[in-house]
Amino acid sequence: MTATKDARGMPSNRLETLADGVFAIVMTILVLDLRVPEIVGAGGLAGDLAALWPRVATYVISFVVLGIYWFAHHQVFHFVARVDRTLVWLNILFFMGVTLTPFAASLLGAYPNEVVAIAFYGILLGLLALLGYVIWWYLTGDRGLLAHDLDPVLVKKVRLWFLGGPAVVPLAIGLAFVNTFLSLLVYLILPAIYILVNPVDRYLAELRRGEAR
Amino acid sequence: MTATKDARGMPSNRLETLADGVFAIVMTILVLDLRVPEIVGAGGLAGDLAALWPRVATYVISFVVLGIYWFAHHQVFHFVARVDRTLVWLNILFFMGVTLTPFAASLLGAYPNEVVAIAFYGILLGLLALLGYVIWWYLTGDRGLLAHDLDPVLVKKVRLWFLGGPAVVPLAIGLAFVNTFLSLLVYLILPAIYILVNPVDRYLAELRRGEAR
Amino acid sequence: MTATKDARGMPSNRLETLADGVFAIVMTILVLDLRVPEIVGAGGLAGDLAALWPRVATYVISFVVLGIYWFAHHQVFHFVARVDRTLVWLNILFFMGVTLTPFAASLLGAYPNEVVAIAFYGILLGLLALLGYVIWWYLTGDRGLLAHDLDPVLVKKVRLWFLGGPAVVPLAIGLAFVNTFLSLLVYLILPAIYILVNPVDRYLAELRRGEAR
Amino acid sequence: MTATKDARGMPSNRLETLADGVFAIVMTILVLDLRVPEIVGAGGLAGDLAALWPRVATYVISFVVLGIYWFAHHQVFHFVARVDRTLVWLNILFFMGVTLTPFAASLLGAYPNEVVAIAFYGILLGLLALLGYVIWWYLTGDRGLLAHDLDPVLVKKVRLWFLGGPAVVPLAIGLAFVNTFLSLLVYLILPAIYILVNPVDRYLAELRRGEAR
Repeated sequence: MTATKDARGMPSNRLETLADGVFAIVMTILVLDLRVPEIVGAGGLAGDLAALWPRVATYVISFVVLGIYWFAHHQVFHFVARVDRTLVWLNILFFMGVTLTPFAASLLGAYPNEVVAIAFYGILLGLLALLGYVIWWYLTGDRGLLAHDLDPVLVKKVRLWFLGGPAVVPLAIGLAFVNTFLSLLVYLILPAIYILVNPVDRYLAELRRGEAR
Repeated sequence: MTATKDARGMPSNRLETLADGVFAIVMTILVLDLRVPEIVGAGGLAGDLAALWPRVATYVISFVVLGIYWFAHHQVFHFVARVDRTLVWLNILFFMGVTLTPFAASLLGAYPNEVVAIAFYGILLGLLALLGYVIWWYLTGDRGLLAHDLDPVLVKKVRLWFLGGPAVVPLAIGLAFVNTFLSLLVYLILPAIYILVNPVDRYLAELRRGEAR
Repeated sequence: MTATKDARGMPSNRLETLADGVFAIVMTILVLDLRVPEIVGAGGLAGDLAALWPRVATYVISFVVLGIYWFAHHQVFHFVARVDRTLVWLNILFFMGVTLTPFAASLLGAYPNEVVAIAFYGILLGLLALLGYVIWWYLTGDRGLLAHDLDPVLVKKVRLWFLGGPAVVPLAIGLAFVNTFLSLLVYLILPAIYILVNPVDRYLAELRRGEAR
Repeated sequence: MTATKDARGMPSNRLETLADGVFAIVMTILVLDLRVPEIVGAGGLAGDLAALWPRVATYVISFVVLGIYWFAHHQVFHFVARVDRTLVWLNILFFMGVTLTPFAASLLGAYPNEVVAIAFYGILLGLLALLGYVIWWYLTGDRGLLAHDLDPVLVKKVRLWFLGGPAVVPLAIGLAFVNTFLSLLVYLILPAIYILVNPVDRYLAELRRGEAR
């Protein structure tokens, strides 16, 4: 801690603490949308809980998506040595989008068949991924912000990785005009792909393998 | 901080910060279920507060149970040197369960005599312990994630420790069909046992004693 | 971070992060009790805001009291090298009391003239200080948890410091039977004394002065 | 961590963690003011969302303003080596103002045309900047709290920087008597200036350039 304060530039630790705080709170606030029924309905408490399914579904999807964004933030900042004003403000903009997620999730949970709710959710998450792309682009430019030199192949792969979401979101929104269920299906499948395909994790694993040899 | 960034692998510090954030918020959100009466009832304010007792009871139990899970997470991650994608996602799944606790507690506080509420609460907490078991199993496998070699006896003891909860929960749910009060009693006694029996604490104490000799 | 993981015992950093998280959230949640009027009353918006004064007063007092407890926790843990199971559980109990503060504050803000509300608030804060006393007593015992040897005079002074609150609270509650305003006055003056008289701060300042000589 | 505990004085890390926690929660709580419509109005869901615009505007402005305060806190504490009682209490007072921001924002979002709401918002943010000035003044005095000697030119520039806001706020409140929209415009433009003009960032960049030569 004291050591990093000597550096000629601001270390990234507080931006990371703020990020972890924002994600922890946003992930937890999602659950406030699951409300306990005031009165037990005709179908009993089990029936009341079953009726919550659209909210439970958006809760699960949103939690996983936030997990993906948190992990991406963690991985990107793994390479950061110092932050400057632009990087801080790109992050604050990113956090603003993150804090809007519970609102978007709440909207989708309340109106799962409304094109407006589906589009709002998709546009927000797509913009967040685009912002991730911009942050990565800014960081990997020659600005002295990185802790080490990065493999140019990794730099490119992560860029494409960030663009995957924004590329698919318009399709998901378009599908909503045909059938809203199809859009929700895309929102469900997309995170799964991001969990399975992770260029940074693969890169670090290869580095370890290379070292072990 | 800067030092850990040189490691060929992601350090565990941000996952720990996220965990601490999630637990801190979830523990605090529990209290939102204790609502101040809008109007003072016939029994006076003291009577209104006394009427809150089922919510107070679930608040206390849930807080203690979350304390147990937090401490278990802290102890398990005490041995972790680096995290990989699988470990991160097992944790995010674990956090999802943790954030559902206030909902389960709220349900139980509102309907302490409903088998559905008792079962939901027990199943959630049982699944969380099972997930703890999986995380421990994954970590202690030969994956290069640990900071030191671990005593195989400790590894086994902690596994059994994680399985205790899931083993008892079906009993607690079964008892609910006889008398819901008996189930709540099990939920009350089980945490007490977990506080008293802690294999990791015992192991570290023995290490210290060995060193002092 | 990695360094502390080699220690034969659990470092205190995660307990401190959890504490900071709990305090940050509890301090922020207090503000949720100040609700924006749905409709502007006859006295205009300024009149509506003025009518919030009992809630604003309990908000300010509670925030300051929580600040005192947080600072005390920070100061006590400044001397801690490692934590054990008992210390962790004493802390979790302490955090439980801390998370109840918004409820007690909300009760007092809604019913500033009710003896029950005044007593509940005072008893909670008194118990928290008592728990602080127990934590300090446990820590300063010969348990190998401290980072350095402590001046026995400081140990004794801090003990008395923790007992000050619990000693005055019964008086404040007793006064409520005469006039509730007098109790609130005690709750207002007591924190001011704790801000002004801080044995740990004085001790560290003396250490620095001794070094400078 | 352990290292900083040997210092004769309290390190700033826990005050920074508390600050990051408070900011993370306050920034996230702002979004709770955007409520999903219970019933879709005549203009459809899109119309309902459009009707939220005053709340969205205050949300965006407040988030950015909090970002400015967080970044200023981060930058100021970049130079801090240790904290004392006065610095801690100035910070707790600062955090109290920060936690009031969601209330002020909620008031402004609900009553964007009320002079009282505009004044409350402006006075709160102005007082926070004034407090920032006091903290900076206290820190840069000869109290042994800084990590290095600071350039006196920087010290003076940051002082002026903190006074900019409080100087403009009375103007913004005065304008509200003419046209409330003009006040909101000032609240919108002011943050933009603070993002663009940042003396600490410029100072650190110059230090780096000097080193590179």
